[in-house]
Amino acid sequence: HGKNIVILVSHIQDPASQRLTWNKPPKSVLVIKKIQDASLLQPFKELCVFLTEKNMIVYVERKVLADPVIQADESFAAVIQKFCTFREDLNDISNRVDFIICLGGDGTLLYASSLFQKSVPPVMSFHLGSLGFLTPFNFDTYQSQVTQIIEGNAAIILRSRLRVVKESREKNARVDKKGIIMTNGDSEGSRKAMQYQVLNEVVVDRGPFSYLSNVDLFLDGHLITTVQGDGVIVSTPTGSTAYAVAAGASMIHPNVPAIMITPICPHSLSFRPIVVPAGVELKIMLSRDSRNTAWVSFDGRKRQEICHGDNITITTSCFPVPSICFQDPVNDWFESLAQCLHWNVRKKQNYLSSKEDVF
Amino acid sequence: HGKNIVILVSHIQDPASQRLTWNKPPKSVLVIKKIQDASLLQPFKELCVFLTEKNMIVYVERKVLADPVIQADESFAAVIQKFCTFREDLNDISNRVDFIICLGGDGTLLYASSLFQKSVPPVMSFHLGSLGFLTPFNFDTYQSQVTQIIEGNAAIILRSRLRVVKESREKNARVDKKGIIMTNGDSEGSRKAMQYQVLNEVVVDRGPFSYLSNVDLFLDGHLITTVQGDGVIVSTPTGSTAYAVAAGASMIHPNVPAIMITPICPHSLSFRPIVVPAGVELKIMLSRDSRNTAWVSFDGRKRQEICHGDNITITTSCFPVPSICFQDPVNDWFESLAQCLHWNVRKKQNYLSSKEDVF
Amino acid sequence: HGKNIVILVSHIQDPASQRLTWNKPPKSVLVIKKIQDASLLQPFKELCVFLTEKNMIVYVERKVLADPVIQADESFAAVIQKFCTFREDLNDISNRVDFIICLGGDGTLLYASSLFQKSVPPVMSFHLGSLGFLTPFNFDTYQSQVTQIIEGNAAIILRSRLRVVKESREKNARVDKKGIIMTNGDSEGSRKAMQYQVLNEVVVDRGPFSYLSNVDLFLDGHLITTVQGDGVIVSTPTGSTAYAVAAGASMIHPNVPAIMITPICPHSLSFRPIVVPAGVELKIMLSRDSRNTAWVSFDGRKRQEICHGDNITITTSCFPVPSICFQDPVNDWFESLAQCLHWNVRKKQNYLSSKEDVF
Amino acid sequence: HGKNIVILVSHIQDPASQRLTWNKPPKSVLVIKKIQDASLLQPFKELCVFLTEKNMIVYVERKVLADPVIQADESFAAVIQKFCTFREDLNDISNRVDFIICLGGDGTLLYASSLFQKSVPPVMSFHLGSLGFLTPFNFDTYQSQVTQIIEGNAAIILRSRLRVVKESREKNARVDKKGIIMTNGDSEGSRKAMQYQVLNEVVVDRGPFSYLSNVDLFLDGHLITTVQGDGVIVSTPTGSTAYAVAAGASMIHPNVPAIMITPICPHSLSFRPIVVPAGVELKIMLSRDSRNTAWVSFDGRKRQEICHGDNITITTSCFPVPSICFQDPVNDWFESLAQCLHWNVRKKQNYLSSKEDVF
Repeated sequence: HGKNIVILVSHIQDPASQRLTWNKPPKSVLVIKKIQDASLLQPFKELCVFLTEKNMIVYVERKVLADPVIQADESFAAVIQKFCTFREDLNDISNRVDFIICLGGDGTLLYASSLFQKSVPPVMSFHLGSLGFLTPFNFDTYQSQVTQIIEGNAAIILRSRLRVVKESREKNARVDKKGIIMTNGDSEGSRKAMQYQVLNEVVVDRGPFSYLSNVDLFLDGHLITTVQGDGVIVSTPTGSTAYAVAAGASMIHPNVPAIMITPICPHSLSFRPIVVPAGVELKIMLSRDSRNTAWVSFDGRKRQEICHGDNITITTSCFPVPSICFQDPVNDWFESLAQCLHWNVRKKQNYLSSKEDVF
Repeated sequence: HGKNIVILVSHIQDPASQRLTWNKPPKSVLVIKKIQDASLLQPFKELCVFLTEKNMIVYVERKVLADPVIQADESFAAVIQKFCTFREDLNDISNRVDFIICLGGDGTLLYASSLFQKSVPPVMSFHLGSLGFLTPFNFDTYQSQVTQIIEGNAAIILRSRLRVVKESREKNARVDKKGIIMTNGDSEGSRKAMQYQVLNEVVVDRGPFSYLSNVDLFLDGHLITTVQGDGVIVSTPTGSTAYAVAAGASMIHPNVPAIMITPICPHSLSFRPIVVPAGVELKIMLSRDSRNTAWVSFDGRKRQEICHGDNITITTSCFPVPSICFQDPVNDWFESLAQCLHWNVRKKQNYLSSKEDVF
Repeated sequence: HGKNIVILVSHIQDPASQRLTWNKPPKSVLVIKKIQDASLLQPFKELCVFLTEKNMIVYVERKVLADPVIQADESFAAVIQKFCTFREDLNDISNRVDFIICLGGDGTLLYASSLFQKSVPPVMSFHLGSLGFLTPFNFDTYQSQVTQIIEGNAAIILRSRLRVVKESREKNARVDKKGIIMTNGDSEGSRKAMQYQVLNEVVVDRGPFSYLSNVDLFLDGHLITTVQGDGVIVSTPTGSTAYAVAAGASMIHPNVPAIMITPICPHSLSFRPIVVPAGVELKIMLSRDSRNTAWVSFDGRKRQEICHGDNITITTSCFPVPSICFQDPVNDWFESLAQCLHWNVRKKQNYLSSKEDVF
Repeated sequence: HGKNIVILVSHIQDPASQRLTWNKPPKSVLVIKKIQDASLLQPFKELCVFLTEKNMIVYVERKVLADPVIQADESFAAVIQKFCTFREDLNDISNRVDFIICLGGDGTLLYASSLFQKSVPPVMSFHLGSLGFLTPFNFDTYQSQVTQIIEGNAAIILRSRLRVVKESREKNARVDKKGIIMTNGDSEGSRKAMQYQVLNEVVVDRGPFSYLSNVDLFLDGHLITTVQGDGVIVSTPTGSTAYAVAAGASMIHPNVPAIMITPICPHSLSFRPIVVPAGVELKIMLSRDSRNTAWVSFDGRKRQEICHGDNITITTSCFPVPSICFQDPVNDWFESLAQCLHWNVRKKQNYLSSKEDVF
């Protein structure tokens, strides 16, 4: 005997192995700019001129161009002529752009993510001031950096997203082109389902109330716990360094296939955050005996009430955000931990000196 | 254009999908019993009788049978005759047993793990008293449970291990059959490398000193941080609920392919635990300017000093521990969180009442 | 020389030394009952009968007697006749009652506290179900317990309160008998000041918004920090085991003369809670550059907006709540930690077993 | 009635009120210098020359002068002639010095504290490099600063110390002049008691073992909890920002009369640190059923084993350390939190940007 022995060898992916590869040279680029920020106008114009000179088709949202300062710039008018413009609420550009360039803070990447409910093109994000978690590129050398990307010379990290479906009971369900799905009405009326793709987190919290209704949390159909506290955060690894870290979570590298569940100010001292495999299905509902409602938001947006009978279903999305790295997935992450969270940055020797037996 | 768009779809494994499968019926079983625990003798004997009646070849370590109470039991002598006995330090049984049964606490599974430096047979662990993280089976119904396993009717979870190599400078390097590898001596003398497979964690700490030497932590060759404090824990997801959780880590389900790095009482307030992908290589060394040494242990054992020039290299092992589930990987884990850590177990309404606006 | 040496000896109060002492036998008692809780009706009636038989003058709030079940109880009507009834919003009973009895959860003591903006009579609090932090007495033996109190045989703990003044700019300032003070209007209009006595905490939070405005925190006139996160809790030691503990604070015994400042989900990893001496003055204002408003609540009540130019001033109140102990201030506190927060309650040996070197 | 009402008004000390006052001008000063630190030699010599020119009697420990560099400095020899020298182990100077000046890190103040088992003269502490918690003065302006102190122009903070008595069973008890007290031997032999005054903390930990014996913690004679983990820290408010903060404690201003109890890596998730009134008596012993010993240290020094039957008794000392403030007790503390722990020091706007609804 002994023939029965199976050598079990785990397959583990090297996080540094993912590279950007173009099937053919990219031709179209969506430029996203934070609005109402005057400091971004000059970099935006420079970048657009550079891209059109490179013969790229530049997509820009109409409201970005509505800025009076841009309108007043006559020299820029000729450049604008070459743009493809669109409106978020009217035009679906999800199959038209080869890659995306974001200018101005983590919020721009969250916004870019929200524009693409299915497959997302690769995203290059510039920080204009201080480094963000999602904005590794410095604008100073944008020309060489963008050229590198166009030439397909870059590391990439696939940031997983969460697919979140909020299903609620509604008397007069509306139908909408953007994510609303009509389901068969049950005896108590029709039901409405909204779908969201979130890059950071889904938050269920007490909203404007002083305390949270009890909220039940299910994993693969089993009730795993009831949340009492200010709320609960279900986040991607990318989101672990956003709201979740403020609520006490450990920080997870975006290459780890996992979902983080973090209570917000839980009443129970033992309610530590947990990390579950990316393949599970989570469901959140008000507890049957809860007397109040709760509120939900998606990447900090679309805040809405959760009522009795509503449920929030969360799975890992099939459509991650391919985020272009400045160096590589590992160095970029540790650089952002240091810059954004001062992770373990400290003067040496201060504390030690008090413990040293110098005498 | 638009042809360039690549639909990126993540592949995510369902944690419930892993099942125990035998190529042919199992014939040999290693029974591990915690020694010096009188309460385990009767269950141990019952189990062994049951297994021999099932025509299984039973492996038992010699020191287990050296117990005077077992020696004195004449009726058990006939059963012992049928055992294959071995000594940990002399006999390599790693290719001879089809599966393992552990009796008595998480420590028995850690011990079982240490016996198999390469591939590990499936392990079934019984708790005799209170539930442990690694011991999901209750002994009361052992007969039907063991029969189910033999018949291949069980869910399994692959608990990843860490492969740890401690390389040190030695004047008179010794050679040993159990993991010591001689490497080419450099100009300063020969080097010794010891290898360990750990299931919970590697701990580097201050040992008997009042304070820790500065310890440098490298990831894929880059210095990512310097640890000042009581030490640092590098753990598997399985180990996240052991020492790491006591040091403040979030808890990670064993199916998540990741490595957790947790500082022990760090001097820096911002030194939060981090979770990195399973595919990275970590290295730990004394900082060049540190005046003291540090200590290392492996699953709480083999405690030894780390001197200047020594290094500890940690990667995810190719040889996980296939641990047989009582129910399935998800339910077993949440059951152990509740039982072992009282995770979010609390009386309802106590706290809320103080926040309710009842008047 | 040597004459200059001053022997510095600290004076430290023994927390067990405070006792209830009556100048003359107590004659009047205010009974507070949580409304809308049917389980409290029978104990309430029993207690009131007992007190009237003891010739105590019983004060009861009118809305408590408005309960239809009480109205329907004809046998109780005769007892009600002897009550002194009052309405919170109309009658000031703060100088008429010798002591207070609360029935039903920590919320009742918070409510009792709110009725007395200046000196508070001693309070005896019964929990009817599970023990609360502020309700140490079990109702089963209420007769002997109440008799002991009347006879002056009890330990007492002085729970400090915070005096909180919210000063805001108002075009049309109103004057009100309950805490509103008119101050001289400055050039931008008149100002209104509201005063509150809080037993647990003042909370400044983001209210219904997704994120908090920056909030500045001053101590004795100096800006000590700016809060970025979900908010900040300023609590008494009594309040340290309420919302503050959920936000990560250490727990402070009510006899420690201190004020606790606890951030709620702070963005900075190093923003640990701090404990300052009871004698300081704290002030909270929106930061000059904050774009949103914040919200404030007092013991979970009177939730209101904080606008630019408003300020919240917090000092230790001169009027603590004398809370009658079941045993004494030390034992009562540790009992409540164990019962309400399961403080360090765990099964032995689980974890240790995994660290023991049993083989 | 109503006459029974007692107006309870708390007496709260203003932390800023304590000032240094000399009965007559100070004449003698003890200068403490960290040894084995070459960078301190020049400042030390400058300071001593300055003090002797001011006609102060300068006390210096003999081992400080044994430094070869000091010995070799011929110009300094004349200054040394005027010193009063002493040896820590032979001479008791506790009644001879009017104040103390420390040069070089928090450790020097801890050392100064250990020299004075009873009353401590006021201490002025200079940091030579980076600011410490206990060393508020910058050496650059030492002349004017020292002059201010001599003239009695300074705020002072009384840092409480803990009086710790370790009582152990000994066959051959020795008698020593420095803190050893012989007690009457019981039936099992004589007992030895050692006394320590600690400024930061007493630590009981697992020492060189992989796990801690169970340790029982008593408060005023009652068992309040059993510690399972790496150990327990009993600290002063001063010590709350040293080891305790690394173990997760909140930070307590030194003017709060309290004792902090902080577990080190406790097995129980609910074992949060607690703060108890300064007036209590704590006692620590090995649990009856613990199989190993534990270790204790005092301000990081005098590390020793705790055996079965030993006990550690801790009370607030009658002899605090009067520490001279640079500004005042409040500003000095917040300055040290920012400098030493980076408390809530962060770049603004980074995180917020990701939550802002900018689009």
